[in-house]
Amino acid sequence: MATFSSEGTPISEYGEFGLIRHLTGAFPLHQKGSVLGVGDDAAVIRPQQEQIVITSDLLLEGVHFNLMYVPLKHLGYKAVVVNLSDVYAMMARPTQIIVSIGVSNKFRVEHLESLYEGIALACRHYGVDMVGGDTSSSMTGLTISITAIGEVGKYPVLRKGAGEHDILCVTGDLGAAYTGLQVLKRENKLFQDDPSLKPELDKYRYVVERQLKPEARKDLAPLLENYNIRPTAMIDISDGLSSEALHICEQSDTGCRIYQDKIPIDRETESTAKEFGLEPLIAALNGGEDYELLFTLRPADYEKVMQEQGIFPVGHITSKEQGTKLVSSSGSEIELQAQGWDALK
Amino acid sequence: MATFSSEGTPISEYGEFGLIRHLTGAFPLHQKGSVLGVGDDAAVIRPQQEQIVITSDLLLEGVHFNLMYVPLKHLGYKAVVVNLSDVYAMMARPTQIIVSIGVSNKFRVEHLESLYEGIALACRHYGVDMVGGDTSSSMTGLTISITAIGEVGKYPVLRKGAGEHDILCVTGDLGAAYTGLQVLKRENKLFQDDPSLKPELDKYRYVVERQLKPEARKDLAPLLENYNIRPTAMIDISDGLSSEALHICEQSDTGCRIYQDKIPIDRETESTAKEFGLEPLIAALNGGEDYELLFTLRPADYEKVMQEQGIFPVGHITSKEQGTKLVSSSGSEIELQAQGWDALK
Repeated sequence: MATFSSEGTPISEYGEFGLIRHLTGAFPLHQKGSVLGVGDDAAVIRPQQEQIVITSDLLLEGVHFNLMYVPLKHLGYKAVVVNLSDVYAMMARPTQIIVSIGVSNKFRVEHLESLYEGIALACRHYGVDMVGGDTSSSMTGLTISITAIGEVGKYPVLRKGAGEHDILCVTGDLGAAYTGLQVLKRENKLFQDDPSLKPELDKYRYVVERQLKPEARKDLAPLLENYNIRPTAMIDISDGLSSEALHICEQSDTGCRIYQDKIPIDRETESTAKEFGLEPLIAALNGGEDYELLFTLRPADYEKVMQEQGIFPVGHITSKEQGTKLVSSSGSEIELQAQGWDALK
Repeated sequence: MATFSSEGTPISEYGEFGLIRHLTGAFPLHQKGSVLGVGDDAAVIRPQQEQIVITSDLLLEGVHFNLMYVPLKHLGYKAVVVNLSDVYAMMARPTQIIVSIGVSNKFRVEHLESLYEGIALACRHYGVDMVGGDTSSSMTGLTISITAIGEVGKYPVLRKGAGEHDILCVTGDLGAAYTGLQVLKRENKLFQDDPSLKPELDKYRYVVERQLKPEARKDLAPLLENYNIRPTAMIDISDGLSSEALHICEQSDTGCRIYQDKIPIDRETESTAKEFGLEPLIAALNGGEDYELLFTLRPADYEKVMQEQGIFPVGHITSKEQGTKLVSSSGSEIELQAQGWDALK
C-alpha cells in the first residue's frame, strides 16, 4: 500500500524532449518490421504479412487504476498486456506498440521510470517493439494511451462467425482479477485508517497477481495452429464472461448456453470471494479484467483439443431464438446480463 | 464564447456499447485497405504499400484545449488534423484513424455528437477511415487519443537527412494560430466578466480560424512528386519554427540559418499580435500549432519549385559547427531557442 510517494526528481528538470529520450532511449527494436522507432513525426513499419490489426486503449487514473495500491511498474506492464490481449483475440501476433502518457505535476521522474520499466518488461516478455509515443502534461492524474499493432497469419478471427452447436471455450479460470481488486481495496482502506498496518496479501497471492499483473494468452494461437484449428469466433475477456459471450452472440446472430458448473474458477478465487461476501460465479460472469480468451470451436475441432490443458468448454452456441442463457447447477436457465457501464451513472 | 452548455441527454442513457454504436455507426469505410472497422477487438487493415507510418497524439482538456472557447465540433476536427499532420510530415498519405475518448459526467450525448461530427468532417475532407476506438468514463474532463496510420509511397522522409546548403522551406505563414489563441483567451475573459458581451471575432477571422480549425498540408506531397522532388528532411510545425528547425538540425547533425525577413507572417497575424503587445516574430518562432510543414530541399530541387506559391524559403542548412541561428533584419545572429515544455514547471 501507499506505493505512491511524492519524493524524487521533478519532471521539469528534463523538459519534454529530454524526458521522452530519457524514458524511451533504452527500447531496442527487434521486430523485422520495425523500420523506424521513437523520435520522428511517426513510426515506420514494414508489415511482414498482408494484413495487420490495430487496437487502442485509454487508461485513466481514478477510473481504470488507483495508484494507492497499484505500483507503477505493474501498471506499465498491465497497460501493455490489455492491449496485446486485443491483438491475440484476433488470432494475430503483436509486433509493435505506441505509448502516449499525460502526467500531472504530482509525478516525479522516478515514477515514470517505474512505469516505463513495466512497459519494457512487457515488451520483452511478448516480443513487441515500442516504436513511438508522446509525453504531455495533464491537469490531473495519469493518462496512458497505448496502441498495439499485430500481424495476421492467414485471416483474423472475428467476434462474428460462431455457428449453432459450436463449443464455447475459455483459456483459463475467471473471476480472480475482480476478487483480487476487492482484496487490494480492503487493504488500502485499512492502511488509510491506520498507516502502521502491514497489508496481508500472502494468502491472496494468486488473485492479487491476476489483478496487478495479468498476462495475455499468447499461447492459444500456437496450440490451435498445431492442430490446424481455426476458431469460428473469438474475443478477450475484459468485461466478464457474460458481456463477452453476448458480444459473440450478437455479432454472430446466435444464442448460447453457458453452464455454471463448467466455468473454471480457481479455489483461491472461490474462498476469497466468499470471504468478501461475493458470489464467485458473479465475479466470473461480470467481474472482468481476467484477459482470458473466449472462443468458439466447431464440435469436431473441439474433440481434437479436448485433452489439452488450458482449454475449458463452458457451453455451446444455439440458434438466436433460444436466447442467451446461463444454466445453473440445478438446471434452471437465467438470462445472461452484460455488466453495465455504470461509472457515468 | 460559452460554447459548452450542460443541457442535453445524459451519457448513461446509452451505456458504453450503445454510445460507441451511436457515435461511430455513421462512419463509412472508403479506403481499399480498411478490411474491418469499429466493432471488434481490433481493426483489420491490408496496407496497399510496403511501408506504413503510425503516430499517436493525446489531447487533454485544460492542457491542449479549453471548452469555454473551443466548440466541440472544431475540437474533433482539429484532433484529427494534428495527427494527420504528423503523417504528411513523413511524406505519407493518411489512410485510417482510431479514436479513443474519456469523458466525465459533465458531458452530454449532444456534446459527443458534436465532437464526432467534427471528426467525421475531417475524415471526409482528408479521405481517411475511422476504423476503431474506445469510449471510457473519466474523472475529470475530456481526453482524446487519436492514432493515425498512413501509407508511404517509396520511402518516408525523416527528420534526419538534411545536408549543408539545403534550403529550409515552410508551406505557409506562421504565428497565426498562437495569435488567434490570444484573441480567444481575451474574448473569453471579457465574456466571463460580463456574459452579456458578444465576442468580437470578425476582425480576427483568419487568426482565430487558424487556431480553431487548422488544416494539415496534404498538398505538399503531390506538388513535390509532380517535380519528382524528394525533400531531404521534414517535420510538421506544432511547437513553433524554432523548435522544429532545431529537431531537424539535431537529427541531421547540422546547423542552420533562418532569416527573420523571410519568415512568412500574415498581415492579420502581424497587426493582431501587435495589438496584444506580442512580437509577431516570436509568435512565428515559438507559438506553435500552425501545422505547416518545415522541410529541406537540395538547392537544385529548390530552384525547380521556387516559382510555386506555397513554398517559402526561410533559410538554409549549415555545418554543425556554424550553430543554429536566427539572422535578424539588421544582420545580427541570435541563437535559436526551443520553446520549453513549461506546463509542468
